[in-house]
Amino acid sequence: MTNPTQSPGSGAPAPHKPSLDHLRDQIDRLDKQLVELLAQRGRVVQQVTEVKQQHDLPTFHPAREENLISARRAQATQAGLDPDYIEDLFRTVLRHSRVGQLSTLGRRGVRPGAKVLIVGGLGNMGRFLSNWFRQSDYDVRILDRDDWPRVRSLTPGVELCLLAVPIDITPSVAAQIAPHLPPACVLADITSLKLKPLEAMLQSHAGPVVGLHPLFGPATTTMDKQIVVVSPGRQSEQCQWLLDQLTVWGNVLVETSAAEHDEIMGIVQALRHFATFTFGQFLHSRGVPIARTLELSSPIYRLELAMVGRLFAQDPALYAEIVFATPERIALLKDYLQSLQQNLGLVERGDKAEFVARFRKVAEWFGPFSEQAMRESTFLVEKLVHRF
Amino acid sequence: MTNPTQSPGSGAPAPHKPSLDHLRDQIDRLDKQLVELLAQRGRVVQQVTEVKQQHDLPTFHPAREENLISARRAQATQAGLDPDYIEDLFRTVLRHSRVGQLSTLGRRGVRPGAKVLIVGGLGNMGRFLSNWFRQSDYDVRILDRDDWPRVRSLTPGVELCLLAVPIDITPSVAAQIAPHLPPACVLADITSLKLKPLEAMLQSHAGPVVGLHPLFGPATTTMDKQIVVVSPGRQSEQCQWLLDQLTVWGNVLVETSAAEHDEIMGIVQALRHFATFTFGQFLHSRGVPIARTLELSSPIYRLELAMVGRLFAQDPALYAEIVFATPERIALLKDYLQSLQQNLGLVERGDKAEFVARFRKVAEWFGPFSEQAMRESTFLVEKLVHRF
Repeated sequence: MTNPTQSPGSGAPAPHKPSLDHLRDQIDRLDKQLVELLAQRGRVVQQVTEVKQQHDLPTFHPAREENLISARRAQATQAGLDPDYIEDLFRTVLRHSRVGQLSTLGRRGVRPGAKVLIVGGLGNMGRFLSNWFRQSDYDVRILDRDDWPRVRSLTPGVELCLLAVPIDITPSVAAQIAPHLPPACVLADITSLKLKPLEAMLQSHAGPVVGLHPLFGPATTTMDKQIVVVSPGRQSEQCQWLLDQLTVWGNVLVETSAAEHDEIMGIVQALRHFATFTFGQFLHSRGVPIARTLELSSPIYRLELAMVGRLFAQDPALYAEIVFATPERIALLKDYLQSLQQNLGLVERGDKAEFVARFRKVAEWFGPFSEQAMRESTFLVEKLVHRF
Repeated sequence: MTNPTQSPGSGAPAPHKPSLDHLRDQIDRLDKQLVELLAQRGRVVQQVTEVKQQHDLPTFHPAREENLISARRAQATQAGLDPDYIEDLFRTVLRHSRVGQLSTLGRRGVRPGAKVLIVGGLGNMGRFLSNWFRQSDYDVRILDRDDWPRVRSLTPGVELCLLAVPIDITPSVAAQIAPHLPPACVLADITSLKLKPLEAMLQSHAGPVVGLHPLFGPATTTMDKQIVVVSPGRQSEQCQWLLDQLTVWGNVLVETSAAEHDEIMGIVQALRHFATFTFGQFLHSRGVPIARTLELSSPIYRLELAMVGRLFAQDPALYAEIVFATPERIALLKDYLQSLQQNLGLVERGDKAEFVARFRKVAEWFGPFSEQAMRESTFLVEKLVHRF
């Protein structure tokens, strides 16, 4: 673009066009060097991965990451750069490096060769988990709806039986499969409810039992930092290798009782999904022009609408299962509706003072979390603004 | 950390500890160089800013940004790097550069020295806008609640009168101030409703009128890509300098009729805020342990909860204004409640089939937006996972 004969010396005041082109060329050269350095970095990380693989070392080293970030922040401050900006960039670099390492290291089998039976192995999550177990050298067997006649040939020597069937049939499937399992076999499920499935598994199987709830769907490409909720059932030591395998894959495990799990998921899943479903349906019923609302909206609304759209891109049966799961959940939804009704009453009476008073009470209760929420959502909104 | 006498040559198989340390040292050196390059880049961008300032050139150059990204993506692919990863990094670099340039270039006054009267100038948004006008060398005057006795001394020669008072008093304040304004003065408001305020401004002032709705709050530190909705009133050409000023500050302007604006904001603001408020209040009334739900949650819920927390970190009066604004909004809330009630009926009857059928219908209506929503929210969820 620049005509070199025209290109001005850096000191002299020059016509702006070539000078701007000149500066932009400089930027392009620097950016090219940046990418070259990132490629070099990638090759060193590859060597790190090989060393870690040889010596069975973990992918994620939190202290190392924090030291690295601190050193770069300090350097940035000295160089007159905004340390938050540099941290933001290096968080992206580190995540990329972690995910890259996981794709190699995360394949390691904790108990390679062990026989794993996945019941419902042709469903979405069943297929997904089968792949992960296979990649880690397990001997994976699938038992789906039509395979029951073959059950006697599939179960001998099985060390893990994983139930990946819909919530409502999980208890009956547990009762059906348990008599065929070796006594030392780990029996586990992955439904989004824990009380009833765990009870059914404990009743029908005398060996090790654990309830799992992976908080991610089958579209996930990496398990890096994905959460799996663990509700212990029986003989936790015998179940430990399964939990270790999840950790090797990159998952973060959070332990809770089945009762606490189900209560919290009532709010976190059932109520949220119900409200989101209704909002999407309401937009549809009024024929709201989605694209136009996005043009006229702040990034926060864009984010909210993205979450509505996300719901409707997924499997309705799964959401029906979660929302319809238990009588307690239905009672919860009723309570929520009552709250809405009471607030609508306020609006109809035009009672702004009471609205403000209630608002203040809730704000106080949220306390420091509000500040954190503001910070996190602002960070994300900025990402959204500069990306889309 | 590494003992140099022990440090192995790159070929020989060595004990892993020093080798890993050695590789980490290499990474640290590369990272240091990365920050040095970024600092150099920052200095060149500073020169670009100076050139742009001399020649009144705009900060944001979309084509230049897209070319830059394309070139880096191509280089990444050739170097065996994931182009999305490199794009992600450079989007952050570009945004940082834009915001840095704006903090210099964005100060330029389109009509420096012009007298600007901000009514409600001591409120949050009033103060915020006063600062921006002052930074761009306008002669800013404030008229707040107690200043009406001074109105005659504040209004002579005023070229812009900006109403930054609560929605419910905007029409009466417009009527009160208009008789004091010079005929050529631009009269504008910034409330989140447009029909009534615009009508009142047009009725009370015979000169140029424009309705504005900035979709951001006074906590915003940069106007970079922030949206301002513009509803034209009268003599648009006379209002143009004000719109140009907003563009110089970095805002993106979206034009719409007052009627369309108010209808869409009913959904985008009133209904969303009402539902979010009720959800926060519901969590409070049940004493849900926020911190524990976050430990047991997917990033999507974390995002949703962040948006609830964000609401309660802000001014309740503003939300009351938006929710209580018009009879149409109250009717809208009632309709929404009815939808919820109907869906609750489904759940109480255990009619999963109908739930799935309705879900499918809405999913079809959302169409391609669902895919986009999935992509955008997944991108953000990844940011959230690796940041917090």
